[in-house]
Amino acid sequence: MSQRLGVWMVGALGGIGTTLVVGARAIAKGLVSDAGLVTNRPEFEPLTLTGLGDLEFGGHEVRTSDYWESAYQVAKLSGSLDLEMLQELRPELEALSARLRSGTVVNCGDAIEDLVTDDGARAEESLRDTVARIRRDLAEFKEAQGLEHVVVVNLASTEPDAGDSGPGDLASLEQLLDADRRDAVRPSLLYTYAAFQEGCAYINFTPSTAALCPAVRELAVERGVPFMGNDGKTGETLVKSALAPMFKYRNLRVLSWQGYNILGDRDGQVLSHKDNLASKVRTKDSVLQGILGYPLHTHVGIDYVPSLDDRKTAWDFIHFEGFLDHRMSMQFTWQGCDAILAAPLVIDMVRLAGHALQQGERGAMTQLACYFKSPVGVDQHDLHEQFHAMMAYLRTHGVQVG
Amino acid sequence: MSQRLGVWMVGALGGIGTTLVVGARAIAKGLVSDAGLVTNRPEFEPLTLTGLGDLEFGGHEVRTSDYWESAYQVAKLSGSLDLEMLQELRPELEALSARLRSGTVVNCGDAIEDLVTDDGARAEESLRDTVARIRRDLAEFKEAQGLEHVVVVNLASTEPDAGDSGPGDLASLEQLLDADRRDAVRPSLLYTYAAFQEGCAYINFTPSTAALCPAVRELAVERGVPFMGNDGKTGETLVKSALAPMFKYRNLRVLSWQGYNILGDRDGQVLSHKDNLASKVRTKDSVLQGILGYPLHTHVGIDYVPSLDDRKTAWDFIHFEGFLDHRMSMQFTWQGCDAILAAPLVIDMVRLAGHALQQGERGAMTQLACYFKSPVGVDQHDLHEQFHAMMAYLRTHGVQVG
Amino acid sequence: MSQRLGVWMVGALGGIGTTLVVGARAIAKGLVSDAGLVTNRPEFEPLTLTGLGDLEFGGHEVRTSDYWESAYQVAKLSGSLDLEMLQELRPELEALSARLRSGTVVNCGDAIEDLVTDDGARAEESLRDTVARIRRDLAEFKEAQGLEHVVVVNLASTEPDAGDSGPGDLASLEQLLDADRRDAVRPSLLYTYAAFQEGCAYINFTPSTAALCPAVRELAVERGVPFMGNDGKTGETLVKSALAPMFKYRNLRVLSWQGYNILGDRDGQVLSHKDNLASKVRTKDSVLQGILGYPLHTHVGIDYVPSLDDRKTAWDFIHFEGFLDHRMSMQFTWQGCDAILAAPLVIDMVRLAGHALQQGERGAMTQLACYFKSPVGVDQHDLHEQFHAMMAYLRTHGVQVG
Amino acid sequence: MSQRLGVWMVGALGGIGTTLVVGARAIAKGLVSDAGLVTNRPEFEPLTLTGLGDLEFGGHEVRTSDYWESAYQVAKLSGSLDLEMLQELRPELEALSARLRSGTVVNCGDAIEDLVTDDGARAEESLRDTVARIRRDLAEFKEAQGLEHVVVVNLASTEPDAGDSGPGDLASLEQLLDADRRDAVRPSLLYTYAAFQEGCAYINFTPSTAALCPAVRELAVERGVPFMGNDGKTGETLVKSALAPMFKYRNLRVLSWQGYNILGDRDGQVLSHKDNLASKVRTKDSVLQGILGYPLHTHVGIDYVPSLDDRKTAWDFIHFEGFLDHRMSMQFTWQGCDAILAAPLVIDMVRLAGHALQQGERGAMTQLACYFKSPVGVDQHDLHEQFHAMMAYLRTHGVQVG
Repeated sequence: MSQRLGVWMVGALGGIGTTLVVGARAIAKGLVSDAGLVTNRPEFEPLTLTGLGDLEFGGHEVRTSDYWESAYQVAKLSGSLDLEMLQELRPELEALSARLRSGTVVNCGDAIEDLVTDDGARAEESLRDTVARIRRDLAEFKEAQGLEHVVVVNLASTEPDAGDSGPGDLASLEQLLDADRRDAVRPSLLYTYAAFQEGCAYINFTPSTAALCPAVRELAVERGVPFMGNDGKTGETLVKSALAPMFKYRNLRVLSWQGYNILGDRDGQVLSHKDNLASKVRTKDSVLQGILGYPLHTHVGIDYVPSLDDRKTAWDFIHFEGFLDHRMSMQFTWQGCDAILAAPLVIDMVRLAGHALQQGERGAMTQLACYFKSPVGVDQHDLHEQFHAMMAYLRTHGVQVG
Repeated sequence: MSQRLGVWMVGALGGIGTTLVVGARAIAKGLVSDAGLVTNRPEFEPLTLTGLGDLEFGGHEVRTSDYWESAYQVAKLSGSLDLEMLQELRPELEALSARLRSGTVVNCGDAIEDLVTDDGARAEESLRDTVARIRRDLAEFKEAQGLEHVVVVNLASTEPDAGDSGPGDLASLEQLLDADRRDAVRPSLLYTYAAFQEGCAYINFTPSTAALCPAVRELAVERGVPFMGNDGKTGETLVKSALAPMFKYRNLRVLSWQGYNILGDRDGQVLSHKDNLASKVRTKDSVLQGILGYPLHTHVGIDYVPSLDDRKTAWDFIHFEGFLDHRMSMQFTWQGCDAILAAPLVIDMVRLAGHALQQGERGAMTQLACYFKSPVGVDQHDLHEQFHAMMAYLRTHGVQVG
Repeated sequence: MSQRLGVWMVGALGGIGTTLVVGARAIAKGLVSDAGLVTNRPEFEPLTLTGLGDLEFGGHEVRTSDYWESAYQVAKLSGSLDLEMLQELRPELEALSARLRSGTVVNCGDAIEDLVTDDGARAEESLRDTVARIRRDLAEFKEAQGLEHVVVVNLASTEPDAGDSGPGDLASLEQLLDADRRDAVRPSLLYTYAAFQEGCAYINFTPSTAALCPAVRELAVERGVPFMGNDGKTGETLVKSALAPMFKYRNLRVLSWQGYNILGDRDGQVLSHKDNLASKVRTKDSVLQGILGYPLHTHVGIDYVPSLDDRKTAWDFIHFEGFLDHRMSMQFTWQGCDAILAAPLVIDMVRLAGHALQQGERGAMTQLACYFKSPVGVDQHDLHEQFHAMMAYLRTHGVQVG
Repeated sequence: MSQRLGVWMVGALGGIGTTLVVGARAIAKGLVSDAGLVTNRPEFEPLTLTGLGDLEFGGHEVRTSDYWESAYQVAKLSGSLDLEMLQELRPELEALSARLRSGTVVNCGDAIEDLVTDDGARAEESLRDTVARIRRDLAEFKEAQGLEHVVVVNLASTEPDAGDSGPGDLASLEQLLDADRRDAVRPSLLYTYAAFQEGCAYINFTPSTAALCPAVRELAVERGVPFMGNDGKTGETLVKSALAPMFKYRNLRVLSWQGYNILGDRDGQVLSHKDNLASKVRTKDSVLQGILGYPLHTHVGIDYVPSLDDRKTAWDFIHFEGFLDHRMSMQFTWQGCDAILAAPLVIDMVRLAGHALQQGERGAMTQLACYFKSPVGVDQHDLHEQFHAMMAYLRTHGVQVG
């Protein structure tokens, strides 16, 4: 394949979006290695996925800034981007910024409202008008860049918890839009609806479940496009899903698994709001019982520690019982940089979604389960089984995997 | 099956042997749960493995003690055995002690020599006489208990490193024995030789590689018996082999993996001797490169901290590189009780070896790879793959595994 | 001195009370060392404090149990008491149990209500009657044991937060009692009031601030008795107060100090109730700013993890800034057994309070500040300064301290 | 005071020297805060120490490089220096580089030899000629910069362990120099000898004990100059000396204290040589017994982990026994940047040594004990006591300390 592919990011100037754009350009130019990128491993070669230099970026944002400024801030605050490298990329970062468009914050809750600096995102317009505007942005991007396919990726801040109670079918959703029921939708839902209408694939990297509620999934199937979510598995939950099977293999009974996350970036700030936190904890906390197969005492804490910025730190304490009912413990501390961990996963998924579009595959891309805390349509939380499922997908596309 | 099965332990009164006997009896009597025992999981049921109450114990030892005294010491020092439970088992522990026989310490090195209190283990006799004595012990045990099959398990202290340089074939070994070359053998080699001559299966839970050198493996095949080793994977290495694949799945490049083990039991005391330590570090250190597929900076430290007794503690620090070559880290602390972790693995393997004997299977039991740091005949160190291999073995014996 | 001294415990059968009685008896009988006991150090010798064998125990409790049963439970659950040692002490533990009396739970909140099994503690009586009953218990104990002095120690569960809003002076308190205002008092306040009326010294080891509200302190001064509180400094806060000065000495600016406590005993269960937790967090969280001298981001989490029982575990993460504003971090994990840590502090304070009574000292015993998270009348939270203050007290009593 | 003061660094382009020069200039220019600098705290004001802008830098080095290049490397590898700030300082960094002179590596051992790139440091000359050369460098620096006082600071790599066996008196040292006994001296000894002959103060920040052997101390007293050492207390040992007193205050018996240090800079590389490591471990390991007052099991490991560069990480595990001889544990992980931690201590000491020179104080500056792992002439290792001693020194100079 390797023709050009569109990547439209919702929350385009966040830490992940910024790191992703910088990284894709830096790798394409040979300035850094491709560490962290799974789809660059040899076993993916036969799929001839879109090259990193052929990814075209655009996106929605609710803050007024640009890629250079955003990248500069990341470099200064979290130290994860090299200033000299950024200088080299500065012209193209500035050019890419021109492709950004105003998003929407309808019914997004106070925590996100507080971040908005772009008045365009608060436009006085009906839901139908907002949807039309988003669709127009996507269509213009497609046409301006001469793209056949576009993958929309939600990288925005976590919305307040909506439970699973979004509209249950497409007809209900259409009625809500007609009735301009702003209280009954979330921004993520509007983006997804618009993306599917435009024939785009969709990846929900956030825990905002409204993004892929049953109503829009129905639309995706109808329009013949693929999608996947929810909530990228980047750090503590990744470790959980790799480690928990070990206890199962040894028949060690996990009594308690306490997890404490501290972080200081915009994500942390939004999650310091109780409603937004609820969305997150729900996707993080389902993993263990799923793998171990029995109920256990768990706790997932997320606290905002501004000084940490994007250097997310997690401490997990695992209390377990072995032979003769003797109790032992294990603890780990994970110190990662969230955007650095997340960005390559998004690139991986974008490329695989591009491949799925090319192949005419529709519906949930369950082969991407290993990238999510709460994978749509997949009950398996064991990271190893999830990875094997991705390898199995490769095999069905004629790839020989060892 | 579920007819009675003999378990002959070399180093029968060590922490693992003691915990194993206490645990098997306590589970058989319903005093504790069967936590930690994998072969009690439902998927193993169709194999009709020997019940825990049908395991008959005997063994060699080089120290003068008995099961009650040894178990009492464990209860007092490491707190892993319940005193009231021991009181209930006291009569049978005392009865089982009568089945112990003097082992051998020929060329075992100073560290182990220092532990010997049973002069019978230092008997002035030729190598051929020692072998004959060990065979007699096994044969008498078999007859006295009316057993069809016996599994010999090596649980003794780690011998000084012998490299892989044991006798390369059976003929050479026979010549060494004829020439009474005490400098060229290790106790573990003599036990294995005798066990195979008596038609027993053999499990080398220690890092002493002499136990399964090529010469004796040749004998095993000739006699038609199964065996497996080396070095039980109980704690830190277990975690390593569960966790390392995660870095591979995410294409995160591990730069350094430092592991520090501190422990205070007899095992720790023996490993505080440089030569004995070398055996151990060799088996522990091969795991990571095997899983990750590239060379990396690793270190495995083992230090003797008497106050810890059997509460083995390990700290691992993992330094890795992700997207944009950014460096991050993870660390874990594992606090386990060594004998508690090891004993059920031995029971699992004994039961599966009994099954293999029953089925007439011979040679390396590669299905047991997940239990070893350095599995004979298996290059796979990934715990998940090893566990799948055990499940695959079940399937070949007609078991339906999910 | 070394004449006999009475120790009356409120919450006498809790983990601390039980461990304290077992420990005092075991040390007096020479069954264990005197580790953990500061007042047994040579520098305290000139004070001729009451010997451990001369402490006479009694107390109030709201649960029906006895010392043997309680100690047996501790031994089984947390492993901190040796069963064989308990067997040896059994007769005296049973004898001491006869001295326990029913406490009171008036307005103690749901969390504590749930623990009550002794109906006597819920007696239908006026506040004045409750006070009279408590005073009678104390007086009878004094007379029955032939004691000149009694120290009352509050070891009960943390009450719901009352702020500092207890009655501001003694007259107001008397009015509340006359008016039988059960909504305006807490059990801890009634115990203190009664204790002071009986001329007893009082130590508030709990975070329940009602115990030493201004009104009762006025009474203490009037009656000429000494007292001290609040909230014993046993684990995580102890470490904080020892470590924080280091950052000051090096002019390292602490940006954030996050502390997470997990525990599983009765204390943990009560603290899983929001109101009770508030009391605790308030005393724990004041320490850092006090030592460092500037505001910083702090968090104190306390979560109930039943499987841990009394093995309290705390993880603290400290983010700090040094030269060139570079950020670095430190973390620690504290794994202690709460009752084991607390009991000797109580014995120390009881003996020193006995000394103060003997010397006719009244009011806040500020020399005991090092034992408290929130020492009454002391702003100094630096553990080292607090310890020096205790040494200075010794010096004023003629002791030569190096 | 605040007239200009000379700072002559041995090992001037190492991580500490580079960070120190960058930091002093950056603070003087107001580019960063003065965090980490103790002598900028208000209580030091009355001493009118030399201002940071009045420190004049020069030094010896055995590698060919310059401050800009060195600072740039630090910025890239450890991320502890900000590139934009360095750009602003570039002209003066380049100017300062012109003041560097070739050092000496006579009998420095292989580990350090491997680092040498400046042939001038290997000049074929007698010991007397080397000493004369070093003295000339110091005298020229003094004259060229118009300085009254110069403080020489040893920041070079750790030399191989020399025990305490340097020359015992000045006469012996003079004989060694006359006899050109290159095998019997170390570079650090020659620097100190030359410095004292030139009337400079001397601070030995390294563990190389030859630097302040009895012979040169005799010279210092004769010449009337002050000095201090050995081995800067920057990280793990700092924490040890802050934390160990806590166990003493509670009469908790420390059974074992294991410390593992991993680091990757030039210091780590040199310490990966056994002989050089021995010097270091000796100074680190004496602290605990000194504070606790009884022998205990300790271990200090230092391992070279290149990927860490200057981000030194230490894990300490402390096993202790409390009431009823119950065992508990604590562990901490320290993640600091060595040069960032060390540089401000050196500036503090240089300023205080300048003050001592001004006051005509001679001999060991024991008031600086809190900065050293093995303070010359001081038995006190307790950080708190050491800090109080520094405050006491302030008081003797008329400063009011709270």
